[in-house]
This record gives sequence, C-alpha cells and structure tokens, in this order.
Amino acid sequence: LPINWWCLFAETDENIRRFAEKIFASDVKDEESRMELDPFDVAESCPISQQEMREELIQRESKESVEKRKKRLQRSRTISLAIPGAKTSASQLPAIKEVEISVPLYQSVPDFQRVAITGDYASGVTVEDFEVVCKGLFRALLIREKYMRTSHQRYLRTTAQYLRSIEGETWKEEDEVYPDFTFKEHDEDPFRTDNIPENLGYHTEMRDGVVYIYASKEAAAKNEPKDMPYPDRNIFVDDMNFLIALIAQGPVKTYTHRRLKFLFSKFSVHEMLNEMEEMKEVKNNPHRDFYNCRKVDTHIHAAACMNQKHLLRFIKKSYMVDADRIVHSSKGKKLTLKELFKKLNLHPYDLTVDSLDVHAGRQTFQRFDKFNAKYNPVGASELRDLYLKTENCIDGEYFATIIKEVASDLEDAKYQHSEPRLSIYGCSPEEWTKLSFWFNKHKVYSPNMKWMIQIPRIYDVFKSKNFISHFGKMLENIFLPVFEATINPQDNKELSIFLRNITGFDSVDDESKHSGHMFSAKSPKPQEWDIEKNPSYTYYIYYMYANIMVLNNLRKQKRSKVLVLCVYLILQYIKLSNCSISTVSDFGTGSSKHHKTGLLKKKSPVLQYLYYLTQVPIAMSPLSNNSLFLEYAKNPLLEFHQKGLMVSLSTDDPMQFHYTKEPLMEEYAIAAQVFKLSTCDICEIAKNSVLQCSLSHEVQSFGLHY
Amino acid sequence: LPINWWCLFAETDENIRRFAEKIFASDVKDEESRMELDPFDVAESCPISQQEMREELIQRESKESVEKRKKRLQRSRTISLAIPGAKTSASQLPAIKEVEISVPLYQSVPDFQRVAITGDYASGVTVEDFEVVCKGLFRALLIREKYMRTSHQRYLRTTAQYLRSIEGETWKEEDEVYPDFTFKEHDEDPFRTDNIPENLGYHTEMRDGVVYIYASKEAAAKNEPKDMPYPDRNIFVDDMNFLIALIAQGPVKTYTHRRLKFLFSKFSVHEMLNEMEEMKEVKNNPHRDFYNCRKVDTHIHAAACMNQKHLLRFIKKSYMVDADRIVHSSKGKKLTLKELFKKLNLHPYDLTVDSLDVHAGRQTFQRFDKFNAKYNPVGASELRDLYLKTENCIDGEYFATIIKEVASDLEDAKYQHSEPRLSIYGCSPEEWTKLSFWFNKHKVYSPNMKWMIQIPRIYDVFKSKNFISHFGKMLENIFLPVFEATINPQDNKELSIFLRNITGFDSVDDESKHSGHMFSAKSPKPQEWDIEKNPSYTYYIYYMYANIMVLNNLRKQKRSKVLVLCVYLILQYIKLSNCSISTVSDFGTGSSKHHKTGLLKKKSPVLQYLYYLTQVPIAMSPLSNNSLFLEYAKNPLLEFHQKGLMVSLSTDDPMQFHYTKEPLMEEYAIAAQVFKLSTCDICEIAKNSVLQCSLSHEVQSFGLHY
Repeated sequence: LPINWWCLFAETDENIRRFAEKIFASDVKDEESRMELDPFDVAESCPISQQEMREELIQRESKESVEKRKKRLQRSRTISLAIPGAKTSASQLPAIKEVEISVPLYQSVPDFQRVAITGDYASGVTVEDFEVVCKGLFRALLIREKYMRTSHQRYLRTTAQYLRSIEGETWKEEDEVYPDFTFKEHDEDPFRTDNIPENLGYHTEMRDGVVYIYASKEAAAKNEPKDMPYPDRNIFVDDMNFLIALIAQGPVKTYTHRRLKFLFSKFSVHEMLNEMEEMKEVKNNPHRDFYNCRKVDTHIHAAACMNQKHLLRFIKKSYMVDADRIVHSSKGKKLTLKELFKKLNLHPYDLTVDSLDVHAGRQTFQRFDKFNAKYNPVGASELRDLYLKTENCIDGEYFATIIKEVASDLEDAKYQHSEPRLSIYGCSPEEWTKLSFWFNKHKVYSPNMKWMIQIPRIYDVFKSKNFISHFGKMLENIFLPVFEATINPQDNKELSIFLRNITGFDSVDDESKHSGHMFSAKSPKPQEWDIEKNPSYTYYIYYMYANIMVLNNLRKQKRSKVLVLCVYLILQYIKLSNCSISTVSDFGTGSSKHHKTGLLKKKSPVLQYLYYLTQVPIAMSPLSNNSLFLEYAKNPLLEFHQKGLMVSLSTDDPMQFHYTKEPLMEEYAIAAQVFKLSTCDICEIAKNSVLQCSLSHEVQSFGLHY
Repeated sequence: LPINWWCLFAETDENIRRFAEKIFASDVKDEESRMELDPFDVAESCPISQQEMREELIQRESKESVEKRKKRLQRSRTISLAIPGAKTSASQLPAIKEVEISVPLYQSVPDFQRVAITGDYASGVTVEDFEVVCKGLFRALLIREKYMRTSHQRYLRTTAQYLRSIEGETWKEEDEVYPDFTFKEHDEDPFRTDNIPENLGYHTEMRDGVVYIYASKEAAAKNEPKDMPYPDRNIFVDDMNFLIALIAQGPVKTYTHRRLKFLFSKFSVHEMLNEMEEMKEVKNNPHRDFYNCRKVDTHIHAAACMNQKHLLRFIKKSYMVDADRIVHSSKGKKLTLKELFKKLNLHPYDLTVDSLDVHAGRQTFQRFDKFNAKYNPVGASELRDLYLKTENCIDGEYFATIIKEVASDLEDAKYQHSEPRLSIYGCSPEEWTKLSFWFNKHKVYSPNMKWMIQIPRIYDVFKSKNFISHFGKMLENIFLPVFEATINPQDNKELSIFLRNITGFDSVDDESKHSGHMFSAKSPKPQEWDIEKNPSYTYYIYYMYANIMVLNNLRKQKRSKVLVLCVYLILQYIKLSNCSISTVSDFGTGSSKHHKTGLLKKKSPVLQYLYYLTQVPIAMSPLSNNSLFLEYAKNPLLEFHQKGLMVSLSTDDPMQFHYTKEPLMEEYAIAAQVFKLSTCDICEIAKNSVLQCSLSHEVQSFGLHY
C-alpha cells in the first residue's frame, strides 16, 4: 500500500477544524440541556429545508432556460445511474451479476416485480447543496477506505468500484485487501507447536503511543524504523474533524435522511410486491430452513456466555465433586470449596437462580452501575473469581470447563457459533502470558468459537490506584506482548497459539460518559497523559487503531497465512445522547463491527447512511438493550434492517438476560415475534452474522450455501 | 343443593329484559359503525360522571346536616370494612389468616410496608348510585355462585364469605363445593378395567336439549325424571339480561372503573414500597426458583402441541421407518407412505420448516381464515390426516406417538404440565367411541398431561352439508355417550377410562362472529333449531352448561371419587369488538377458565371487576395473539396482572407460534422480557396456572409448596 495514502486530503482545513470544535462544544453542552435539538438530528418533516427546496424550485422555474434544464437533467442522470466498471450496459444489472459470480451457489435471482423510477432525478436538496453533499460523502467514503485498507480490513467491493469509477480509475480485484483467517488445516491439532515459525529478531519500541519496528536495537537508537506504513495523528485528527463537520451539516442531513427514507420505502415496496415470491423461494429451498441455517453470536462476553441456570448447575456440581479441594486463597490463607461457602454463609444446595442473582431485572434499567454488580454470583466477588475468571487459585479451571460446556452445546446444535470476548486490561505486561497459559492449559478450543479481546476503557481507574504511571504504559501493556509474540513466536509459543485463535479487538465501556476532552493536534502524547482523567473515546480508538494497523502490516508482510488482527470497536452500553462523536471516529478508523450503535445512530442520518453505503457490520442485542437502556419494541433493529443496514443479532450476556437453554435462538425468536420478521428476514440477519464474523472463509461459505 | 336455588331472583324484571334487548341491539349495530362509543366502555376521564359527582357534593355540602353526614360516614365505613366471618377484629387481617390456613406451607407474610387509607370512604359515585351499584354487583356475584355451585365447580371462598355475611348468614366450610379430580392411586395403571363400577341401568333421554335421567324407560314415558337439579332456561335468560343491563349501566361502569384503577395503584404502591423485600424473600427461598417452580400450559391444542421442528423431524423419521406401510386410503385405493408422498409430489428429505408451512406469519395477522389453513402441513390435508388426526388408516398412531414424545419432554422437564384439547364435533354419535378407542389403543397417558374436550361451534357447517337435522341432534351426539358411559360404565369400558383422564369441556370458535340472534325466552328449542344459521354464543353455552350441570350432579351423586366434569368455556380468537355479550354469559354460567378474553374484557370495566372479585381464571397467549390479533406490547397481560386478575400463560399452538424446544418457557421468557416482569411476577403467574388447571389436588399443592 502506498504510504502517501496517509496524506490524502492533508490540506488541513482550518474552517473544518473550527466548525468541528463548535459542534463538539455544543455536543458537550447538549448533555446538560437534553431538550435542545441534537446537531446530528433531523426533524421528521424538516420544514426549513422543504421551504428552501420550494423556493429553489420557483427560482429555477422562472430563471432557467430550457437549455440549462436539459443539462441539469443530464448531469443528475449521470450521477444517479453511472455504474463503475460496467462493461456491458449502463443499467443496474452488472452489479447484481457481480454478486452472483462471487456467490457461486446462489441459484438465481427470482423473477421479482421491480419498480422503475423514471424522470428527472430529485435529490431532495438544491443542485448546489447536492454537489456539496456528494463531495462530502465521497470524501467520507474515501477516508474509511483508507483506514480499512491500511489496516488490512475488508472494504465493501461495490463501494470501492463506485469510488474508482468516480476517480476515473479502473477497479481491480487484485487491489482488494481482506483479512485472512485461515490458519489451520482440517483436523489439525489447534495446539500443535511444530508449525510455529522461526524468530525474526526484530526490535520493537513504543514511540508516542505507537509500536515501531526496527531491524535491530541500533536502528532503534538511530530512529530508523523498518519501511512500513505508520499512522499520522494529525491527519487522523483532520479526518475526524471533517467527519464531525460533515454529519452536522444541514444539507447533508437532509439529503441522507431522504435517501434513508427512500431505502426504507424501497424495502416496503419490494416486500409488498414480492413477499409471496420470496416465500415461495424459501419453501422451494430443499433441506435448509431457519433452524439449520448457520448463525453466529456476534457479540458475547465469555464471562457471561452461559445462562444463569447453567452456572447454578455448575456450582452445585463442583461442590459435589470438589468440596475438599483448595480453591481460594486470600492473605496467604487457603480455603477449600467447602470452607469458602461456609465463609460466605452459603450452602450450594440451597442456591437458586434467584439467590444467585446474576439476572438483570427492572432494577438495572438505565443503571449500568447496578448491572456491573450482577457479574458477582450471590453478590460475592469470591465466587466470580472462582467461577468466572481465568486467573485464580485453580488456574481458571472452572471457567474453562463452563466455557467448554457452552462450546459443546454449540457443537451439538451444529449451526450455532459464537465469538466470545476475553479481557486484556493493560494494567500489567503479564496479562497476555497469563491468559494464553489459561487457554493452552485447559485447551479451551472449539471449532464453533473464535475469540475476541476486549479492552475496557478504564485508564482512570488504574491511574487513580496508581497501578500505571501514564496512558502510554497501558498501551505498552496491551500491545508490546502481541508484537513480541509475532516477531519471536518461538520464545512465546503459548501466546502464538492463542493468537491463532483470536480474531479481533474490542473496546468496552459506557460510551455515554463524555470525557469533555476533544482529541486535537494539541492533545498530550500518551506518555504525557498522566492526569487521572480518562482520555476521550476518540483518543483511545486512535491509539488502538494505530497499533493494530502496524501489527496487521507486520503480520501480513512477514508471515503468509498468519492471523491478521482486526479492529472490532464495539460501542458498548450507549445511552441515547451525545455519542455521535465516538461513532464518527469508529467510522473513520474502520471499525469492522458495531454493537448497539442502533441506540446512537438513530440520531444521525448521515452516519446511518454512511454505514449503509459501506455496509458496516452492526451487532445488535435488543434483549440486552431492553434490560439496560431501551424498551424492546422501540429498538431500531427492524428499522435498520428495512433500510438495508447490515445488522446481526447477538446475545451480549446470556447469564444476565436469557431464560432458555438456547440463548441465541431465544434472541432470534423474540425478534421474530416482536418485529414480525419473516423467515426471509431472520435468515438474512443470520447470513449477516456469518458475513460479519471472523470464522474462516470455508465455514463462512459453508454457512451461506450448504 | 336446594333445587329452589334456580328460582333465586326469579321475579322476571320486564324492564331489565327490555334494557338488555336495547343494549344487544346497539351491540349488533355497533358492528357496522365501530367508531361509536361501546356501551360497555368507559372513557378514561369520564367527564360526565365527574360533573355529576361534583354537583352531588355541592348539593350535599349545602343541604346535609352534621347528623346525616355522620350517618353516611358510618354506613359507608360499614360497607367498606365489614368482614364476613370475622371472629377477632374488624381489621383486614382475618381474611389473610384464612389464606394462610388453607396454604399450610406458606411460611409467613413478610413484614411489608403498608399504606393505610383513612377518612371518609369515597366510592367515586354518589351515595344513591353507590347503593345501586353495590346491589347490582352483589346480585351478579350471587348469580355466578349459583351457576358454579349447581354444576359442582369451585367458587372463591373469600367472595362466598362476604356474600354470606351480607346475607346475614354464617359461612360454613362444609358448604363448599369443588370438583374432585382424584381418580387414581399412585403407580396405578391408568388403563386398568377391574375397578370400573357396575352398571346402574338408568334410562336417559334428551328433552328440549337437556339430558334427563330416569330410573327406567317407563319413568321416561311418564316423564318422571329422577330427583336431581335441572336447569331452567327462562331463569338463565333473566340472569343474562340482568348481567347485560348491569355492565352497561353508567354508575356501575364508573364505580368499577375507579375500583380497577385503585387496584392498579395499590399494586404500584406495593411494588414501589416492597419490591426489595419481595426480592429478598424470593432469594431466601431455598432450592426453588422460576425454573423449578411448577407451571401448567393452561391452553393448548393437541393437534398443534408439538413445535414445527418436532413435526418435521417426526415426518422424516416416519418416512425412514415406514415408507412401505399402508397409511392412506382414499376412494378404496390404499397408498403406502412412499406412494402418498409421491402423489403429493414431495420427498420428506427435501422438507424444511418453510415448506412445511405451519408457522403463523405476518400473513395470518387478523386473518383467522388463513390461520386455520396452517394446520395442513405443506398445505396438504392428507398429511394433516396422517400426522395430526386420531382417525385415519393407521388409527392415529403417528399423532399418538408425537403426543407421547411431547409428553415425555414434559416429564423430562419435570416441572411442566399441559392440558391439551381434543375435539368432539357432535356430528356423529360415534365420535366418543372412536376417540376413546384411540386413547386406549395407543395408551396416550402421561402424568404431566390432562385432557380437555373442545367443541367447535360449527353447527352451521354440519347443517349446510346436511350431516345433522337440527341443533338438538348435535347436543345428543355430544352428551348422550358421556351420560351412557357414566350410567353403564361396564358397557363402555374404553370411554369410562378415557373420561377418567378428561377434566373439562371447551368451546372453540371465532367469538367475533356475531350471530345477530339474541337468546330469549322465545328462542326456538334445540330440536326446533333447524335453520342453517348458527345459534348465538349464549345459546351454545347455555346448552353446554345445562347438560354438564346434570352430568356433574349425576357423577357426584352416584359415584364417590369419580371424575367431575367442569365447564371450561374458552373464548377463542376474539376480536376487539362486540364480544361482551358472550363474556357475560360465561360469567353467568360459571365458566372456569377464559382464554384471550384479555382482548375483550379490556373494554368492560364491570366485567373485569367481576372477574377480579371472583378470581375467574384467565389463560392468556400473548404470542398467539401477537400472530393473530394484537401486537405483543399492547397485550393486556401486564395490566390484568397488576389489577389482580387471575392470569396464566399458555402457548395455544406451539406448532404455529413458537421457535424453541421449550414453547412454554419461550412464552414465559418473552413475557418476562417485554413486560419486564420480576421473578415474583412470573412465579405468581406460574402459581396461577397451577391453581387454574385440573391436576389432582396433590400435584397442585406439590407444585405450590415443594
């Protein structure tokens, strides 16, 4: 990849920066006065822009000559119908054919009724605004493409084709980048060590929060890093500012709002015209129905991946078998399981799911603080340590066993997969070693599970307790071990094996907390960030992205067929206000997956439309939202699906939210019932979950076609 | 029981009759003009009655002397606080103690915070209206008590105590009647024949639609029936008219509406004050939680009691085992399973739940006609005959096997029971024989299942095809075989055994169909009803009630410890309009259980309040409603629960509505999620389901206390 990509749009626009800062300020203010109109919001009817439009039309009517009118007509037609890379005709069909080719087993598009839209193209905004809007959206799409490509993440092919066509270039298949998750042959032992590559002996050092790779220590002393793309913070800030400004602009809001409404109407019309045809199609598809179409739980925390009943049963079972085993030690005193329960004044026989008290209830609604306490069974952190942690007196054996039981249920169900999250906190450099020790010792592997690393954004907590000196230290703890294992895998065998099973990183926290600090060129460097305050979301995301980008390039260059890590920035626990800033940075940094963003993107039509254009994966958990922030029937899942956004369903925390033995099926069943989804709809959502996930290509295509 | 009970309120009030007819007429008219105010409805604010109230208060203020006022105060206090059978004090406590006594294992009422309401009792209506209202409600309660007692059905003890106290009588425990479901010792073979009682040799004859019992044929010729209570149609009509008039009266609507609001507020206040206390209580309850608290599926159709996946699996399995078995015969031609599928142009291997097409979808919403077609797998009535019917070429073997598989799942789940419905149509006198042959041949018995008989109200269909000559014939076909088996069990062994497993009757149809005919003293007798039109709901219900009342008295008198049948009139598939008339007759006839009446009682506060006062069991299926008539979030389940009505959850048709392997748990889980029910709430609903059902007393108390 050309390193000069980073300088794309490098002309720092002072106006944009200032506008973005104004928006940011008003966003902060908004937090206090919620009644004001959100700057990213657009009113349903939008009377002002309608009036503008009407005036524009009247003016046009009177002024415009027939000549000019024709020209405008032509131009707008060109804009709306131009197909990039179209070799045969100017109709929409080639794009569809492209899909057919890349999806070889899809039999044929049924003979659907279609609506042709003819006549003058009406964008819904004035011609001048339309040009500004399109240029803005074009630049936004290029920004995302840049961040995705430089970190070796997939970018939607159709969008890339359009972008190349607008630039007057030819799109080439070989230019495409995508992560390669294939790492193991069939029936190969996932824990084998004989195929671990040789050490490279490179030297790594973190500079200004980003890991740099040097051929040797000497090269590091001379500050001569190896020839690889490195990120540029100032350009990132500019890009962010541009996006913030873009999504707050009136005409862009109006235009994208109208486009989204149009998409929604298209869906409705298609459904009305072709519902029966689709249903026929579904019925004629042999062997395959909703039950045996593959689905992936795209967002689930390992520490809550079992349901409450399962955890309870496990606790009772462990007591029956292991009562006299030493399982706990505090202040040097060792306790057996029996003694531990005695100390807690409990007997497992008396335990019920109610006394276990891990289920979210009415008490947790809009109370994220209370929700977090639900992770402690019977309110006792000792039990959480024993049953739900990887590090404890028994080396996380119980936790590993529970997870393997969950995995074996998935394997039995055959068509269900999941991507559970394990935590790396960045508090100590030992964390990766300990986690990979746990993974290898207990052989926590299942073909139906891929692992994600979640990084809680709790620098402020560690700093206040003086565990770390500055934010840079936290970044070092998180990233240096991974670089080290990539460069010298023979010295880090366990971590290397663990990394083969990891597919991405994940950012976890309550995004509604507004840090009040805007990430700008003047923000302190990570090693200078030694105040107690948490850096802003954007700051976190930039440094996560920057390091993962370097890491991915290293892994891609130096090892063929090795795992490429992927930024999965998942917006967790978002309240309805002031989150647009965070999502902007996600859109920019090329986060591959979003969680619960439904709750925030509802507010910004521009972001929604950009998410649609690039098909950013969104993992939604309406049941979790229902317990925490948003009533089920008000969840935007259905609306997003109808607008064509790429949504999937995930459980988040079965321990806290679900009742039945099959949490993912429960999630699908409730969505199907409440939103009256057709088989077609739920199968499409299941398909999305497969496309979003990081299973190997093989399983993915299997999931879609067999 | 004294036969003169029937003459209670026998003074036929001409005014009431005329008023009721007027209401009925306006109800019919209403069907055309839905925009008008429903006569049973009350506006949320009710400005007219408020104004009346205000005027009354002003008048009172000015006129009333202090003396009079005191008297009024005293009187209203007496009315509101009088406790029947209270031996210790005039406080509310004795009633609670009563409950404690009858529920021996309930440990103690927790120390809840309570709100005391002091000061003058305000009914919300004027004193004059208040008296009229109370007298009306009193009479309504007595009417229900009469119909319940004469047919040996349980009547709420607390209500009975109040009624006796108002009458100045003493309530006695030995006066209570209740059905006795105990029919078999532990581990006794349910199909044993050696304990079948001797024949009685009585003679039965149907006269005017009711079966009469005579000592002999000669007694019948002389019209000298045995000394037993028989119903009186004119009194029934008078009672109905009274109830119709009552629920349409303004002051009664206002008063009951206010009482319901009051109940609702009490629930909210209790919840706010004691939620934590309740939760503590729940947590401290050892061994027992929502998962292992017993729950009964109170309304489920046998022909749809498996889920779609189960049916699909069974069809595939049957094909693997039985491909060459003769399973179908039409017009004398016999077909093997292989040939049948070939004829249908199908191969079971290709079948999916989509092609099976038994699940309700958006297409069925508000389309009951489409819904009924969903009972045919792959749209083929041949497969329905083969897999979901008791009478076919293989004597209903497949259907029996599927049901036994469902039963074995229930037994494995241990805490789940169900009451599936089987149909008797009344089209031929052979139906009972055939059904009991099926039951005995395949030994369709499970300790976790009790059977109900559903009687579709489709006289018009049979008459139009000339299967029966008049409505009386249909009644004969339905009831004579049951009387015959009760009197001469030795000649009807199979039916006798089957009857031991049946717990009630059920009326099935779309209640929204208004017959337009009002049941009155002038209505034709059943044997005179030879027109093609269907009799009204009330007419059906009266004749079902009348026969079951005689039957129950016969069974109770002549056989100790035999099964007593129970009227379970379940209002199926109700639309939101014009159904109050039907429910009135249910309230009168003492139906023990209601289904989906949520949809209609929402409209009449008077009926709702009467249902509350006598705790009429209501079985609700919000998922079924959601697919058919009413969106999930709008279902009145939560509101009814909060008002104190006795609601339970049921699945109705798992084949059509549910997705998971545990339909009843799915129903509970979705209700808990969408309505944010606490563990307390769902356990109370589960408790209600146990109290509503017809399991033996033993299992009931086991379900509640262990």
